[in-house]
Amino acid sequence: MLPTPVKYTMVAAGAEGPTRLNAFDAALLASGIGNLNLLRVSSILPPGAEIVDKLEIPAGSLTPTAYGSITSETPGEYISAAVAVGLSHDTFGVIMEFSGRCRENEARERVSFMAEQALIMRGMPIKQILVRSTEHQVKQIGCAFAAVALWY
Amino acid sequence: MLPTPVKYTMVAAGAEGPTRLNAFDAALLASGIGNLNLLRVSSILPPGAEIVDKLEIPAGSLTPTAYGSITSETPGEYISAAVAVGLSHDTFGVIMEFSGRCRENEARERVSFMAEQALIMRGMPIKQILVRSTEHQVKQIGCAFAAVALWY
Amino acid sequence: MLPTPVKYTMVAAGAEGPTRLNAFDAALLASGIGNLNLLRVSSILPPGAEIVDKLEIPAGSLTPTAYGSITSETPGEYISAAVAVGLSHDTFGVIMEFSGRCRENEARERVSFMAEQALIMRGMPIKQILVRSTEHQVKQIGCAFAAVALWY
Repeated sequence: MLPTPVKYTMVAAGAEGPTRLNAFDAALLASGIGNLNLLRVSSILPPGAEIVDKLEIPAGSLTPTAYGSITSETPGEYISAAVAVGLSHDTFGVIMEFSGRCRENEARERVSFMAEQALIMRGMPIKQILVRSTEHQVKQIGCAFAAVALWY
Repeated sequence: MLPTPVKYTMVAAGAEGPTRLNAFDAALLASGIGNLNLLRVSSILPPGAEIVDKLEIPAGSLTPTAYGSITSETPGEYISAAVAVGLSHDTFGVIMEFSGRCRENEARERVSFMAEQALIMRGMPIKQILVRSTEHQVKQIGCAFAAVALWY
Repeated sequence: MLPTPVKYTMVAAGAEGPTRLNAFDAALLASGIGNLNLLRVSSILPPGAEIVDKLEIPAGSLTPTAYGSITSETPGEYISAAVAVGLSHDTFGVIMEFSGRCRENEARERVSFMAEQALIMRGMPIKQILVRSTEHQVKQIGCAFAAVALWY
């Protein structure tokens, strides 16, 4: 089987770029996970996984990551992205992601709600909800990105 | 290299949730693979892979999965998702997925056709087509989900 | 951790199919990586990775791949897909992908520009930009696909 991650970090950032994909790439860089190969996952925090401030991951590594992102080409528009980790007691957690054309506060509220609901749906007591978010006001082509990167 | 899966299971379910992502999460749970980290793949059944009724996979595991899903916020609407495995003789198989705003029968017919065509395109004799499907009538926010999960 | 790829190949092809997903599948087959389980990644060339003309990968293998694709059901329309690898000196590289309703030349120019910008954004000198591209004129349902497949 593929090894199950044992650590995670939460990141979020916004950035501009000359194309949509470059803006996404710039937001990844700004968030600190721009030189990795993100493997998108949906979206469970493995049991016992520990949060760290910063993951030391070699460039090019295959990095399981849950993320939300939004790109906009509307100058002046606010875009936001947020991720939430919902923790219960002594077991796995849930990860939820949100992105939209809204301010950061709304993104935080919505992603927190989603993580709470995901725990409730599983009948798991809510111990803690962690949120990481960003907002970005678009200049030309902007991207807001939030992620939970999983590692070993 | 990454280890190649040797087992698979076919699942499908529909569910409601308070947001689109929660509905998707609920459909995963209802289908029995809700506490995993799905890694989406396109879409070959490895040679010799054996079908099992239920995979015993630890929570949070990175689980290669081919899937189709559709979410709707139109009350009363029927949505369906289906997966098909196309088997030939003594070799790898093909996996196709379908989702749409239709009844289950149509989803089954279309995904079967797709798997047949994928085998024909490869010049592989058709030994068997396995299909798993679901339909869901939306109450508020619903999701139909069908998957082939690969495992070890 | 998941093993980091050490080789890569660049491929591109267009094809027709009886459904959108079959057209995508046909384009993968035409490009030479149709019998694999593609794991989509974003998008860094690991340090020291070597280019090869053709990867010998067993059917069904989990294959980390950066790709762009576009499917069209408009007969006569030109669609194109392209990937670029941006190489710097003695370190990792960047991978960019593009697809659109345009001719191949435009796709090549755009993806080259994106790879250059991705290097510039990182403050990395541009040593070489490699591009692989395809265009396809749609008959009924067509797909253009370009990829950088990573392997071991």
